Amino acid sequence: MTMLEKTIRNIHRPNTTVYEQAKERLRRQARPAGSLGILEDVGARLAGIFETLDVRLTHKIIVTCAGDHGVCAEGVSLFPSEVTSQMVYNFIHAGASINVLARHANARVEVADLGVAHDFPADLPIFHKKVGRGTKNLSTGPAMTREEAVKSIENGIEIIDELVKNGPVHLLGTGDMGIGNTTPSTAIIACFSHLPVSQLCGRGTGIDDNGLMKKISAIERGLTCNSPDPDDPIDVLAKVGGFEIGGLAGLVIGAAANNIPVICDGLISTAGALIACKLAPAARNYLFAGHKSVEVGHRFMLEELNLEPLLDLQFRLGEGTGAALAMELMDAATRILIEIKTFEEVAIADAQAQP
Amino acid sequence: MTMLEKTIRNIHRPNTTVYEQAKERLRRQARPAGSLGILEDVGARLAGIFETLDVRLTHKIIVTCAGDHGVCAEGVSLFPSEVTSQMVYNFIHAGASINVLARHANARVEVADLGVAHDFPADLPIFHKKVGRGTKNLSTGPAMTREEAVKSIENGIEIIDELVKNGPVHLLGTGDMGIGNTTPSTAIIACFSHLPVSQLCGRGTGIDDNGLMKKISAIERGLTCNSPDPDDPIDVLAKVGGFEIGGLAGLVIGAAANNIPVICDGLISTAGALIACKLAPAARNYLFAGHKSVEVGHRFMLEELNLEPLLDLQFRLGEGTGAALAMELMDAATRILIEIKTFEEVAIADAQAQP
Repeated sequence: MTMLEKTIRNIHRPNTTVYEQAKERLRRQARPAGSLGILEDVGARLAGIFETLDVRLTHKIIVTCAGDHGVCAEGVSLFPSEVTSQMVYNFIHAGASINVLARHANARVEVADLGVAHDFPADLPIFHKKVGRGTKNLSTGPAMTREEAVKSIENGIEIIDELVKNGPVHLLGTGDMGIGNTTPSTAIIACFSHLPVSQLCGRGTGIDDNGLMKKISAIERGLTCNSPDPDDPIDVLAKVGGFEIGGLAGLVIGAAANNIPVICDGLISTAGALIACKLAPAARNYLFAGHKSVEVGHRFMLEELNLEPLLDLQFRLGEGTGAALAMELMDAATRILIEIKTFEEVAIADAQAQP
Repeated sequence: MTMLEKTIRNIHRPNTTVYEQAKERLRRQARPAGSLGILEDVGARLAGIFETLDVRLTHKIIVTCAGDHGVCAEGVSLFPSEVTSQMVYNFIHAGASINVLARHANARVEVADLGVAHDFPADLPIFHKKVGRGTKNLSTGPAMTREEAVKSIENGIEIIDELVKNGPVHLLGTGDMGIGNTTPSTAIIACFSHLPVSQLCGRGTGIDDNGLMKKISAIERGLTCNSPDPDDPIDVLAKVGGFEIGGLAGLVIGAAANNIPVICDGLISTAGALIACKLAPAARNYLFAGHKSVEVGHRFMLEELNLEPLLDLQFRLGEGTGAALAMELMDAATRILIEIKTFEEVAIADAQAQP
């Protein structure tokens, strides 16, 4: 059995008894039933995962996976590939958007190189998990080999295993950095949803109409020449995916196997989560959608995963920013569950307040 | 000049130069332009209000205004009016939903009695601003007199003035408690929007189809028999409003006059904000929408105010819960503005990191 297969076997269903106890407590709280909307279900799901109604998410980590993309040769992005490695350094210097929003969420940022076309110094404090120096151009052939696809997922799992070895992880946020990576992500949802690429394709960092046409064409050619098999998620990842997308899939599988809830960010993180849940449907129990991205394909991914996004702030940045911002809502959901008094508790408090 | 008129005169436009400087800084940050969506504009607006790019919202307060409603006699709510005063005590015992979410947001909760049909002990630590012991039944005549309407708004202004006297207030959230108060709130938006009541009316705390029909009928009869004048917001408040809704309007006007940004909560808070902005259009510059409520009328209020809600979590609770939860997003917006490095700052950091 491979490491990937072993990890998938280790994913167990959250505790449904505790989940139901949580639902019951929420129903008995001194407020109209269901009045705290989506956060009620979030709280109950977290209770099921942690097997307690008193969940405390004190150790939060965002893992931002980076990789480069051969398809950039088709002119699908506004920025050159060099920006991927520059942004990795920016993350390490803590001046990027994800650093700011993670600090705000009281989360630690970890950066992982899954396939950046740049050699980072060995002592740079990142996860060195490079599978290749950027993928090949998916519009003319497979982005990577099947072995590389599996390796990228397993590298993601390794990151989780190393994090867990070094201390508690209560909540994982996934993020991405990779110039051109909305192209493979869109190709992935096109493959799974069978919807036309033109309906799924967004403007990424802000390409114009001409760039959008190039991007649609690159994805369409990639799907035609590669014929990825939607029933074989590793085939999809290999042919039209990316190294960091494989890593992001591995993070979800590894987290689920370690009973850690995962908030996915936008289009790219969710593409990884989609690959993960196609490979290991039980991983879906650990998955939460941080936000809904401006990127149109993201909506179809969330539908495919049947996930309700926590935020819709018109973000289209990646890095894990939407996941970071949603972490506070996860905290709020845990507080709602345990701290809001039930009608019975209010009555007891009233009785005790009597002279 | 009345106290209300004087306060309205004291509302000044936020600093547009600082607002533009903020916009410029956001554009130069090392990320795709506009990629942090709605929070970019929130950050810039706060910069304009506080006249600095480095806004720190360290003193946050939620004021929850309570009042009772004669229209409850029409069977428009699932709960009896007594629950309003019981919930006020629950707020003071800190076991209610708003206490939990305010604690999570690091905000203080203040409760104000604008018109509860119960005599609270004089030493109860709330704002004692009662205008009357509940409104009259708006379906058969005016909910209150014009003088009472003005008084309820002025009482809201007084709350702000007292809060400001006792310490800094950087961010105000508004909330409500009042059994039956989705009925006057819906009547208010019906009056301003001229849309049919059946299109605007929601289920409040969870009434069934029969309750919904009674509620629609009560509002329609109220609008017919009272003929509130949409060009006269005080007339609207007096005829189909509520004491806490007047107080909520006063909070917005008072906050704006003191350069304090305000996050409004759901249907009832926004009804108050709508009255405030009809009376004092400049107050809109200080107003932010915390969330979009399940109550269908709320959407039309936000459209009328041209406000984009920060959250859409299917809340329908009130108390200020949606405002409390949105406070963290306001904090995030201030951090985004000042902490994310510009391309120039990243280049300087890189140059300094050279050996």
